[in-house]
Formats: sequence, structure tokens, C-alpha cells
Amino acid sequence: MKIAIDAMGGDDAPVAIVEGVKKFLSEDHETKIRLFGPSEALAKLIETSEQLEIINTTQVVEGNDEPVAAIRKKKDSSLVRAAQDVKDKQSDGFLSCGNTGAVLAAGIFVIGRIKNVERPALMPTLPTKVKGVYYNMLDVGANAESKAKYLVQFAQMGSIYAEDLRGVKNPVVKLLNIGSEEHKGDELHQTVHQELSQLPEINFQGNIEPNEIMAAKADVIVTDGFTGNAVLKTMEGTMKTVLHLLKDSLMTGNITTKLGALLVKNDLGNLASQFDNSRFGGAVLLGVNAPVIKGHGNSQAQTVYYAIKQVKEMISEQTVTKFRNLYQ
Amino acid sequence: MKIAIDAMGGDDAPVAIVEGVKKFLSEDHETKIRLFGPSEALAKLIETSEQLEIINTTQVVEGNDEPVAAIRKKKDSSLVRAAQDVKDKQSDGFLSCGNTGAVLAAGIFVIGRIKNVERPALMPTLPTKVKGVYYNMLDVGANAESKAKYLVQFAQMGSIYAEDLRGVKNPVVKLLNIGSEEHKGDELHQTVHQELSQLPEINFQGNIEPNEIMAAKADVIVTDGFTGNAVLKTMEGTMKTVLHLLKDSLMTGNITTKLGALLVKNDLGNLASQFDNSRFGGAVLLGVNAPVIKGHGNSQAQTVYYAIKQVKEMISEQTVTKFRNLYQ
Repeated sequence: MKIAIDAMGGDDAPVAIVEGVKKFLSEDHETKIRLFGPSEALAKLIETSEQLEIINTTQVVEGNDEPVAAIRKKKDSSLVRAAQDVKDKQSDGFLSCGNTGAVLAAGIFVIGRIKNVERPALMPTLPTKVKGVYYNMLDVGANAESKAKYLVQFAQMGSIYAEDLRGVKNPVVKLLNIGSEEHKGDELHQTVHQELSQLPEINFQGNIEPNEIMAAKADVIVTDGFTGNAVLKTMEGTMKTVLHLLKDSLMTGNITTKLGALLVKNDLGNLASQFDNSRFGGAVLLGVNAPVIKGHGNSQAQTVYYAIKQVKEMISEQTVTKFRNLYQ
Repeated sequence: MKIAIDAMGGDDAPVAIVEGVKKFLSEDHETKIRLFGPSEALAKLIETSEQLEIINTTQVVEGNDEPVAAIRKKKDSSLVRAAQDVKDKQSDGFLSCGNTGAVLAAGIFVIGRIKNVERPALMPTLPTKVKGVYYNMLDVGANAESKAKYLVQFAQMGSIYAEDLRGVKNPVVKLLNIGSEEHKGDELHQTVHQELSQLPEINFQGNIEPNEIMAAKADVIVTDGFTGNAVLKTMEGTMKTVLHLLKDSLMTGNITTKLGALLVKNDLGNLASQFDNSRFGGAVLLGVNAPVIKGHGNSQAQTVYYAIKQVKEMISEQTVTKFRNLYQ
């Protein structure tokens, strides 16, 4: 089993990526890592071994590069070469924490869509208000325009992922919509609701409203890429704002407040860590011909470590083969 | 100046509504209130006067009534009668805290759209992370399906409202989109971006991403009704979840935590009140032939009071006349 990793993607690349690889290799003694980036620089950070190969690349896809142009022009970038490695069957899965659009484009155009999958979807695993209970949401932004049949496949693939990778039996699938009744929402969501109701292989439980996303009422939340992206960014922004204002208010208060803040510091830290996404690895690009994981841009070693484990599990579980069988 | 109020709409109607009316009348000695509901019950809660008339109605639109059917069948409901009062020019503005869909339907079908306004939009005034700085967002759910020309008018009407009602000079208008560059998003948002760039009468400053909504970077945020509704509900849900978990964690902690919680209690209260929507009145239905305000379903007297003031100000500022002049 071999995993191709873009060493140059993410805010703290290559150091955070390499540290994550080291942590993974300290525990796993069979999986092979093929690390793509400038070999001279990487060799200073990590020693090659039977398990770790460094493949030299000369270009880097930047965060503000236009994705499709970057894929076309930066053929010798760590991101494109790592994806190409999977396409060439040198590796079985691909991880990058770089430019989201470019990772999606590499997944779709280099590694390629599974036959009969209409559109791949980007899917993170996210925390709910209940400790230890998570959900998958897809699509969160691989597609700006959506059709009903895309979302139906998202429901099928998301359900298989939740069952196989997260071990959820008969996962509850819900459709994100602006009302709980089936006639709510626009034509797209009404049609998807109807079609999901008729699928025997998934456990579809109707609509979920956006204020209930974190309420641990669904294992898989299906949404179109525009709404999913908007909702995910809204959650991130709101959470960040509230926690920031809270910290501000406690730090700038009077002596009583400051003493109180000191006493509740641990509890606040625990709360923040409940929503810390580092343990969930990265977002999966479902529907392409190999496991493709997009790690968060600000990933530290810990997140990279979990994301590598995630690629490995998807390879072991043969998730992609299951999708292929579903649509062949 | 006369305002028609649905006394029976909202979780705590009619008591919260009547209390709000009382508070308003204790300060305002010229505006007339026409209160719609069962006169016998209402007469026990408030005394009629030169300024306050009670108009007897026999039906109530419930929260789970199908909106359009409710408007058609419950002709003698407090909600429909109050809207009809505006249509009949007995009142100059309409307030209800009832069934959102029914208030929208009453605004659109009873009071009617302004000529040449494509679609009315629902628009709340919301708090940012900066104390005392607010923004308007529209549409947050009057329309499940949207076209570019609707959103262009939302930008124009929202800008006039922010300038006249909130006193913001040359309000910054942004388009909610899943990327900051103009080519981001679906075709709808790309087209709207282009059209807004060409409007000289508004101060359009490009896209805003959903994680920046609360960052006080725009006075008016334009969005389609599906996304706007989803994003608003996501903010509400996330904020509620975080504050709830915070409270939970402080209340169930050890003795140190509990002591700390006691010391920071006021600060947490202040933080929660910064996002308390009671002071912003209700959401305006822009684009109909009179000021129509939908108060939050859980409105207490304070919110009702502010919502009545809001109707009054819209009447005084002749906001609707300005919209009419824009599109005549």
C-alpha cells in the first residue's frame, strides 16, 4: 500500500506535512509514503527509508493560483505529480493540504471520475454538540452548480463512507433544506427529497434545517455544493467570532472577571477542542478513482497524521471499489 | 399615522404583543394602533383609547398552517385582517410575529407588490462582532428560487433602507458568495456580481464569503433566499450550540469551575446580549406596497416595542414611496 503526499501544500508546509508523516511512520510499519516536493529541502527534514521515498518536484501550486490553470501549467508541481502518481498506479491514494480548487481539479482531471459518477463531492467529517458524535456533510464545494442526480449519488456514497469508515450502522441520511416538510425549498431540493425517499439502500430520514446541523440528528447530511460551502463557512465564522469575543471579554474584564477566567480556562479549552477539526483528518473527494483527501490549509502535524490514516483506511476498506460496483 | 398589528401571532401572543403595544403607547402619543384579535380576550389585557382600537377577529393562523392556504381560508384571522386593513388604507403599516410564510403571503398577495418590483425580499437587521455595528441581509427566505434581476433590486432596496432607516451614509453593499473573486460561485451569483458592478447608485464592494458575515465589512449583504435562509439559520444554530455547551460545561464542572463561572457570569451575559436580536425589531418585507414587519416568533414585549417603532419609522421615512419612485 502506497500513499502519495504533496509535501508543499498548506500554510505550514513542508514542516507540518513532514512532521505528520514522521508521526505516521513511527506507528505504521507497512504502508509506504511517496513524498513529493523539492528533494534537497525535504531531505533536510526527514530521512528516506524502505517506507519513505522522496520524489523531487520543481514547482509549487500557490494558494491563490487559479486551480485549473495551475493543474495545466504546473505539471512538475508537488500537487500535480502526487496526483499523477496515483493515476500511474504508483500510489493507491493521494493527500494534499494545498489549494482546495487545485486538489479538486487534480482529483477530477488527473485521477479521474469513477465511471457513471455524475460529479465528485467534497465531504468533511464534522463534530456535533455531542462529544464523540460526528457527521459527514457533502457536497461542501466541489460543485457550484448542482442537479438532483448529483445529490442522489452523494447520498449513496456518503452513506457507504459513514458505514465503512466511521462504523455507523445504517447511517441516517438527511437532506439540508430550508424547511422540514418535503415540499419546502427550491425545485432542486424538492426533487432530491422525492428521489431519496425512493432509494431502498439508504436510510433517508427527510430534511434537516441548517440550525439543526450540529444537533447530532443525522450521520450524513446531503447538500448542493453552493449551499454546503456557504453553510460550512458560516459555521466556522460564527464559532470563531463567538469564541473570540468570549476570550476578549474575559481578558479585558475587571479583576473579578480575570480571576474567573483563570478558573474556567480549562473548561473553555475543552470546549474549543471539541470543535477542533484536527482529529477528523481532511475532507474526502468522493467519486474519483482513488482515495483523495484534502487536508485543511492550516493543518499541523496532528491533522496530517490523521489524514494519512484516513487515506490508508479508505484504501483498506476498498471504498472506491464499492462506489465502482454501485455504479457499474 | 396608523399601524395594524396582529395580536395573535408569535409564541407568546397575545400577552407579549399587548405588552409591547403598551410600552410603545407609553412613549408615543400620536401614532394610532389598530390591534386585531378576539376583542373579548384582548379587552382584558389592554384598555382601548383614542390611540388604541381593538378590531375583533374570529380566526387564528397557526404556526404549522400552510401559508397560502391559510391566507385564502382564514379570511377572518387576525393576521389576514390586519394585512387587509393596510390594503384598505385604514392603516399605513403592518406588524405580525406569526407564521413567517403566512406573513409573507399576506404581504405579497393581500397588500401587494410594488409595481415593477420583481420579488419582495425578507430582510433582518443583524449584529456584527463589533458592538453597535449592524448589517442588513436580504433575501433570507421570501423566495426559494431566485433570478439575477431579483437580487439586483434587493441591493437597491437594501441600500436605501440602510441609509434611511439606519442612517448609514453610502452603505457598503456586498454579495454573499462562496469565494471572493468575481468569477466564483454559480452562474446566478456571477451574473449578479457583474450587474451590481454596473449600478452607479449603490456602493457595491464585491463578494463577501459566509465566514465574514459577522466581521462588520458590509452594511448590506445581498443573497438569494435559499442561501440567505440557510446561512441565517446556521448562524442561529451555531451560536446557540456554542453558548449552550459553554453554559453546560461551566455548570457541570468541578468546584473551581463553578466559582469561576460565578465570577464571569456578567461578562457571559453581556456577550449573549450583544447577539440578542430583541433590539433590532423584526425582519422587513421589502418591495410590497406598505411597511410590513415580521417579528421573531419568540418575540417578547421589548422586541414587539422595537418592531412597532420600526414600522413607524418606515412610514415616516416614506421608504415605500422611495422604492416606488425607483421603479416607476
